[in-house]
Amino acid sequence: MRWHGDSLDLLDQRLLPAEEHWITAEGAGGVAQCIRDMVVRGAPAIGISAAYGAALAARHAADDNWREEVSRAIEELAASRPTAVNLFWALQRITAVFEQCATLKEAATRLADEAKAIHQEDLAANLAMADHALRAMGADQPVSVLTHCNTGALATGGYGTALGVIRRLHEVELLDRVYADETRPWLQGSRLTAWELAQDGIPVTLNADGAAAAILAQGHVRWVIVGADRITANGDVANKIGTYSLAVLARHHGVGFMVVAPSSTVDMALVSGQDIPIEERDDAEVKSIRGIPLAPDGVNVYNPVFDVTPASLIDLIVTEKGVVRKPDRAGMDALFG
Amino acid sequence: MRWHGDSLDLLDQRLLPAEEHWITAEGAGGVAQCIRDMVVRGAPAIGISAAYGAALAARHAADDNWREEVSRAIEELAASRPTAVNLFWALQRITAVFEQCATLKEAATRLADEAKAIHQEDLAANLAMADHALRAMGADQPVSVLTHCNTGALATGGYGTALGVIRRLHEVELLDRVYADETRPWLQGSRLTAWELAQDGIPVTLNADGAAAAILAQGHVRWVIVGADRITANGDVANKIGTYSLAVLARHHGVGFMVVAPSSTVDMALVSGQDIPIEERDDAEVKSIRGIPLAPDGVNVYNPVFDVTPASLIDLIVTEKGVVRKPDRAGMDALFG
Repeated sequence: MRWHGDSLDLLDQRLLPAEEHWITAEGAGGVAQCIRDMVVRGAPAIGISAAYGAALAARHAADDNWREEVSRAIEELAASRPTAVNLFWALQRITAVFEQCATLKEAATRLADEAKAIHQEDLAANLAMADHALRAMGADQPVSVLTHCNTGALATGGYGTALGVIRRLHEVELLDRVYADETRPWLQGSRLTAWELAQDGIPVTLNADGAAAAILAQGHVRWVIVGADRITANGDVANKIGTYSLAVLARHHGVGFMVVAPSSTVDMALVSGQDIPIEERDDAEVKSIRGIPLAPDGVNVYNPVFDVTPASLIDLIVTEKGVVRKPDRAGMDALFG
Repeated sequence: MRWHGDSLDLLDQRLLPAEEHWITAEGAGGVAQCIRDMVVRGAPAIGISAAYGAALAARHAADDNWREEVSRAIEELAASRPTAVNLFWALQRITAVFEQCATLKEAATRLADEAKAIHQEDLAANLAMADHALRAMGADQPVSVLTHCNTGALATGGYGTALGVIRRLHEVELLDRVYADETRPWLQGSRLTAWELAQDGIPVTLNADGAAAAILAQGHVRWVIVGADRITANGDVANKIGTYSLAVLARHHGVGFMVVAPSSTVDMALVSGQDIPIEERDDAEVKSIRGIPLAPDGVNVYNPVFDVTPASLIDLIVTEKGVVRKPDRAGMDALFG
């Protein structure tokens, strides 16, 4: 994303890889719509975009009604998607700053600064997570890994969470190959992850989600590495639908399962994954691709966007604050309590 | 499929559900091409089509060269796809009859009769399998089940294998709901299974393959029911890519895993699933849909069409000859030895 002070440019992720089209949001409403419509997606990127959206609200607010306008904008941004907690975390940071502002001018300046700080801190967190992950993996030979969805520069402030770890493995010549699940229904894997990795010359093999089990059975893959949209106090993880399947498969095959996410993804207010609201999106995501019908009219569809992986199936949760091995309440409390 | 004596009509499964278009094959070469291109798919349907293809070769052979022509046609048909053993089984039956024929006229008549017999026996086997499966399930309350790929009338001589069992459950009011994996990359679930079930008024919910784990975790589904392309002497099962994943997930959730296939799918000549040739198809199946690119140009793709589920993850193998519980070499020998 590109911040211009009075507008925010977002690369339209719905059109990749066919087309690199940027959408300019000039207000908080435009940013909220971009989040709802998945112009921008990925838990950290949603949080950063929302922060910039709130800053735009302050920038363009009317002198006589600015407190109410900005508050309403923050509410609209918070309602844009339900599952990723980074959105609420970023807006809480913004709100805390906003409540200290005496004038509109001060608010416009300080909200923009806070949004930029959130953005920069996310990028720094990505780099720190890659360091932590590589130490925790202790790889001394190149490994193959499998990932799901897109957790790269497109999903974050830059570099990536799970994909940042994979990028770092490649940089230090410890990556043999990444298998990328195509990640139905939205195809973040084929459209975004394969695109990002190809641009950086990282060896990637794309596979249908259903082929992951056969790939793990072949024994080359040592780690499944994924991101997260919300991590609860017991170490349960909500992430893209299909993640839980991979966690079960990784355990069955003796493959490590690593979750990489900034600490802004951790929600210690929720006891377990059962408490996480799971978004369901439109049937059309499953029933059609770019308007072409793939299924009969009127068929019933179940389209949950996320699933919950219990902590018991996770080997490592990696954040910029450090690593939780075999996560449970005590391990989470030790790092985030 | 529709047999006319001198031609075979095949419903083009590539175009469903958008279009119901029949292709007429007038010779064995046309049938072989329809199998290669997946105009017709599904292990039993491939076997039946190949038998009719051989019959067409006899029907249209030249008087002076008919033995060689028919033999070459059988070879071409046998080379059309590698994994499903029903193809080779059907052509062996055809070849055994062919070798007894003294004249072209006799061959034309007897190969057509044998193909029709293979077709009718497959339909009868489907009905018998549904009987066996329902007895083995012992359901006295409506259950929900999950299936993968398409194993219905389109994939068989009619009625279906796994989908035949589901059809029967519905007929006797013991079916609550079928969850149908969309089954990437070819989308047999959304395009074919949802279409067949909707036509028969059977309650179906379509889901992305990656959502199956979350569905099983909800606890409503009692059985995962799938077909097979080849079953080896130890009870290992090759079936559509993604099947093995479901078997691991079913075991993890305490859900029954049932394989339904005619005995023509059993290949006692192979010791285990490791010996089954697994077809890989074109990258384009994963990288595009109906010609629309979904992934960057040039990205590497792994597209195995089938995977192997070890017998240890299977609760029931159901054939028209009866049921093998917790399959192993002894249990398979007892029924098929």
